[in-house]
Amino acid sequence: MDEEIWQKNSDSIRLISYGLFILCSRMKGKYNALIVNTIFQISSNPQMIAVSICKDNYTHEFIMKSKVFTASGLSTETPLKFIGRFGFKLGKDFDKFKDPLKYEKFITGMPIIYDYSLGYLEAVVKESVDCGTHTLFIAKVVGGKILSDGEPLTYAYYKKHLKGKAPKNSPTYYGGIELQKAKS
Amino acid sequence: MDEEIWQKNSDSIRLISYGLFILCSRMKGKYNALIVNTIFQISSNPQMIAVSICKDNYTHEFIMKSKVFTASGLSTETPLKFIGRFGFKLGKDFDKFKDPLKYEKFITGMPIIYDYSLGYLEAVVKESVDCGTHTLFIAKVVGGKILSDGEPLTYAYYKKHLKGKAPKNSPTYYGGIELQKAKS
Repeated sequence: MDEEIWQKNSDSIRLISYGLFILCSRMKGKYNALIVNTIFQISSNPQMIAVSICKDNYTHEFIMKSKVFTASGLSTETPLKFIGRFGFKLGKDFDKFKDPLKYEKFITGMPIIYDYSLGYLEAVVKESVDCGTHTLFIAKVVGGKILSDGEPLTYAYYKKHLKGKAPKNSPTYYGGIELQKAKS
Repeated sequence: MDEEIWQKNSDSIRLISYGLFILCSRMKGKYNALIVNTIFQISSNPQMIAVSICKDNYTHEFIMKSKVFTASGLSTETPLKFIGRFGFKLGKDFDKFKDPLKYEKFITGMPIIYDYSLGYLEAVVKESVDCGTHTLFIAKVVGGKILSDGEPLTYAYYKKHLKGKAPKNSPTYYGGIELQKAKS
């Protein structure tokens, strides 16, 4: 596709609003987690959700193997440093669960992160759709609970108030400049 | 699933943030449109998006047949009446394009609605995933343009400031009470 058209399309795609979640999974007894903004509900009966994850992300492999994940909905009180720990570090090189962290295991045995979380969802993957660079996981919600009151952290709030950027593997990442800013 | 568990899960699912779009498609020369909140990006190269549509929605049939749709991102300036015209009326009984409406046709020949729209996307469906009551359409973005400046209308803003509700076929609809309030 022509670069100019791609850019024009991207500007429009950026109109889509998102919320930020920490998504966790497990593989061979090891936990990993990442920040996602492309989680959304497909149907309410059965309760199905979908999430798009880059194949390069370490957690992608975890979900492909375990077929389960949890998602904790972040609040606007979340500090940028906390987002950086899960969103901009590589789980292969860095144990994201090493530093103090409040988490529990429920139905699926997956970790559910409580810090800065308004509530969580536990989901079992029913279908994986190959979308080129990303996989779309379609999952059934098997558990969930509200943990505290507060405003859900949106991607717009993250960019505007926390001056945050998208990491390279995000479905909503738009080029090298954004990543460089995020790393600095 | 136990009703109490379903309700608890639903409370958590409601933490997900969304933006509101008008989605249009065409079938046998007829246009139809509906309001969606479950549109999101899957990947940026190629530019893929997904949207979940209830099988009972008239537009569902249009997209299944034409394999194309457009999506206009609504602004916070959108009046509740305009949302009601596209979100709470049945396209089978009511021509949503009859009253004055600014729209154009571009690459795909689908109508693109300009009223209260910050920008639009045109997309060609590549895959349809059956998710029970809903179909998840996975589509490639073939066109898009920003039309005006403004704040994207989120589902949270719609509920909080416009006092809006979810229609029955919405993936994020949670029961009869919500629909009754919306109809009143």
